Formats: sequence, structure tokens, C-alpha cells
Amino acid sequence: MTPKILIVNDDGIYSPGIQALSDVMAKIGKVSIVAPDKEQSAKSHSITLTNPIRIQSVKLKNGLEGWAVDGTPVDCAKVAIKELLNEKPDLIISGINLGANLGQNLVYSGTIAAAYEGAILGIPSVAISLDTLIVESFAASKFVAISIAKHLLKHNPPKGTMLNINVPNIAQEDIKGFLITKQGKQNFTDTFEKRIDPRGHEYYWIKGKMVNNDISIDYDGEAVASGYVSITPVHFNITNELYLNELKLNFSNG
Amino acid sequence: MTPKILIVNDDGIYSPGIQALSDVMAKIGKVSIVAPDKEQSAKSHSITLTNPIRIQSVKLKNGLEGWAVDGTPVDCAKVAIKELLNEKPDLIISGINLGANLGQNLVYSGTIAAAYEGAILGIPSVAISLDTLIVESFAASKFVAISIAKHLLKHNPPKGTMLNINVPNIAQEDIKGFLITKQGKQNFTDTFEKRIDPRGHEYYWIKGKMVNNDISIDYDGEAVASGYVSITPVHFNITNELYLNELKLNFSNG
Repeated sequence: MTPKILIVNDDGIYSPGIQALSDVMAKIGKVSIVAPDKEQSAKSHSITLTNPIRIQSVKLKNGLEGWAVDGTPVDCAKVAIKELLNEKPDLIISGINLGANLGQNLVYSGTIAAAYEGAILGIPSVAISLDTLIVESFAASKFVAISIAKHLLKHNPPKGTMLNINVPNIAQEDIKGFLITKQGKQNFTDTFEKRIDPRGHEYYWIKGKMVNNDISIDYDGEAVASGYVSITPVHFNITNELYLNELKLNFSNG
Repeated sequence: MTPKILIVNDDGIYSPGIQALSDVMAKIGKVSIVAPDKEQSAKSHSITLTNPIRIQSVKLKNGLEGWAVDGTPVDCAKVAIKELLNEKPDLIISGINLGANLGQNLVYSGTIAAAYEGAILGIPSVAISLDTLIVESFAASKFVAISIAKHLLKHNPPKGTMLNINVPNIAQEDIKGFLITKQGKQNFTDTFEKRIDPRGHEYYWIKGKMVNNDISIDYDGEAVASGYVSITPVHFNITNELYLNELKLNFSNG
């Protein structure tokens, strides 16, 4: 039976990454595309509570139809599953994101969040990101997307766990292979740049750069930097169990 | 020496919760208040990348001065620490949020995210939420805030770990005590309500209700429902380690 595949992203429905992903997913399944009507990078798990959400039926450049949602990546995943689709999808793929989602930065990512929303709802879900902001070719990441999709349709991850895939920005033939990795320590060291607008008022831009602190290819950032596709299983059980007992002791002592 | 306390929230700088919190924190420290200029509930860890951020100096009803930020809760924490404050704070408190932040719903919360941003930056950080949307009294949560703040100033949590505090909406004398808890299973079962605007166009509201699935007071949701203040130490190391090895095996078998 043809698998039903829901495609979401955070770069927006007209981004080249979602077009590349839908091109290749349409070869193995019945695709539905539900994505933000404009860029929603770094929107994390935000959902739209204080504004109404509007949805338009649109056509991508590759001829596939989709829904453009005036909301966040998680809004897209939610409204697709709860309202727009007639049947629960067999797989959710979020991406192909321009820019890696690694280490500490997972927490800000809309790409990750949209897939995680699928995982919460018990649907096998994966986020796929390419480690560049300027794309020359999606060939390698398309190949990775197909491989992972086929795998996930056979082997469902546990409910609440999704796969976070990152593809190095090198030629397909130079990729060293797939590595199952842990979330590493890569982080974004940010600062604020103050500017003055034409009316003389101050405003700020967040800016910064990624820093890779990983010590080995057991971690996502170093695996990708070393030419591997990283596959990290992530969930959001976030209790610090180790510290919990210390806290019980500390707290009882005042 | 007087501790430097940064106060943030997601309900906005004019919300009654942040006013109650700053009232009581001003008694034990030098407070700085940096909060969104309007409600930013369910904004999770989103940061503002595609728009400039503007900041205004404002005065709260209690006479304290603060900065109102045209951004998300995490923008507020970041810009406070990186740009607005002359010195690193000794403590960050986010809240007092109207509405509990429990279980699965931590992932959507701007209240949690703002405090977590502090924890990432190595500052003892805590989020405090009151389990009601309609407040009669902040007395109990003010008492809790003071107790926790004093504790955290003595006992710093590990870098990257914050405390998530939830206060039941009962009289202070009816609170059974403090419990160190794990993140539970409470979740938000959401649906979309379709409406037609006056011009005849469709739009949607996300709506839903909280469901408490916790089996014991070892978990945050059940602890609060049973009349305890819950204290959950959370971090964001989100690798599913248990599944990682299974995945290595599965993936090598194709």
C-alpha cells in the first residue's frame, strides 16, 4: 500500500528545500505538503494562540499542491493532522532545512519541532537538515531522505521519539556514511547589533555564530563536520534525574 | 551583598504575575525586569531572527522600572544578559505565569524557555507558574518564589539545568508542602475550531484542554493536583539513549 507522507518545514512552503523533499517523497508515497506561508526559522515549538490561523491552498513550482499556513511549523503539523488530512500519515518529514540543526541549537529549531509534534502524536517522524545556508545541490540530502524514509516505514521509533538527521554539504560520493549519534554541544554564541532606523530610533538584530564543541564523532556536530550523515534519536523527557536526588537532599536541608 | 535578580516572563510586562513577582523579589535583591511588550504565551524557545527587536523603558504599576521588548521570552532573556544589564545576574526568575506548566506542555512554554535560556548561560534560573488562569491571590506563589530564590542563591543547580516550579491554586495554608518531582505526562489535547470572518473567509483557532495522565505525586501534574508545590529540575539533553543502541542495530540491518 502506498505510504501517506506528510511534509512540513520551517523555511516556508516556497523554499527550495521543501520542493526538493517533496520531489523525492512523491516517488515513494502519497505526499501532503503543509508548511508556513513564510520563513519561520527559530520558532521552536511555538504555537499560535493569540491570533487566528489562515490557510491557503497553493501550488509549488514542481506542480505539487500544498497548504500554506499563516502560522508556525508546529501549527502546520498540528493543523495537518487534526484538521486538513483525512487520514493519519504513516510518516512525517520536516525539511530539507537550509542550515544544520545540531547540539544545543535543537531547542530553537522549527524544523525539529514540527517533526517532534508528529512524534508526540505517535507518528514516525524525522527532521532533515543540510549543513549549509547556500545550496548547490540537494542530491545527497534527497538520497538520505529516501533512505531514512524507507527505513522508518519499516522500523517505527517509540512514541515521542523522532530522528534528527543532518547531512554534510559535500558531494554525495564524498559522504563517509551514516552514524547514529548523540546530541552534542554545538551552540550559538549570540550578540545583539544595535542600529538606528531612518527616523532616529534604536533597534537590535540578534546575530552570532555556531561553535562546535564536540569531542568525537559519537556526537552530531563532529559527525557532520567529519563528513558523516548524523542520525540522532531525540525525545523530550527532560527531567535531570541525576540532579533530582541531590536536589531532594539539598532542599530538605533548607 | 545584594543579589542581582533578573525577572522575565511570557505573559507580558504589564501582567499581574510579573508585578507580583517583582514586588516580592525587590525585597531580597536588586531587580531588573525585562519582558515582552505583549503576551507571548506558547512561544517556546523561539527567537526573533527575521524582524528587528525594539526595546522601551517603561514603569510598572508598582513603580518599578523595566524594559518592554518587542520580542519573545527568550529574546528578553538574551538581550537582558547580552546587552541591557551591566552585570551578569545572580538569579533569573520567570513568571509568575498564569497557568501551570506541567508534563508534556513544558515544550511549548515561553515561561520555561526564558528561564532555560538563563540556565544555558550558566545562571541559576527558575520558572514559576500558578495553576489557574484567573487569579484571586498571589500570596502563596509569592511565598514560594521567595523560598525558592533564597534556596537557589545558596545552592546553584548544574549549568544547563533549571527548576520548574508549579504552585496549586489554593490558599497558602492549604498547601501540603514542596515536592521534588519528575516531568509527568500531562498533555494538551488540541483541536482546531473553524470560523468565518465578517468578509466570508475561513480562519482557525487552536483550542483544547489539559489532560493529567500522571500516576503518582512523583510527577509534576499529580503533585500539583494533590495540593503540593512541584519542583522539577529540567535540562535539555534530549538524546533517547535507550533507543540509540536499538537504532544502531536496526539501521545496520537496513
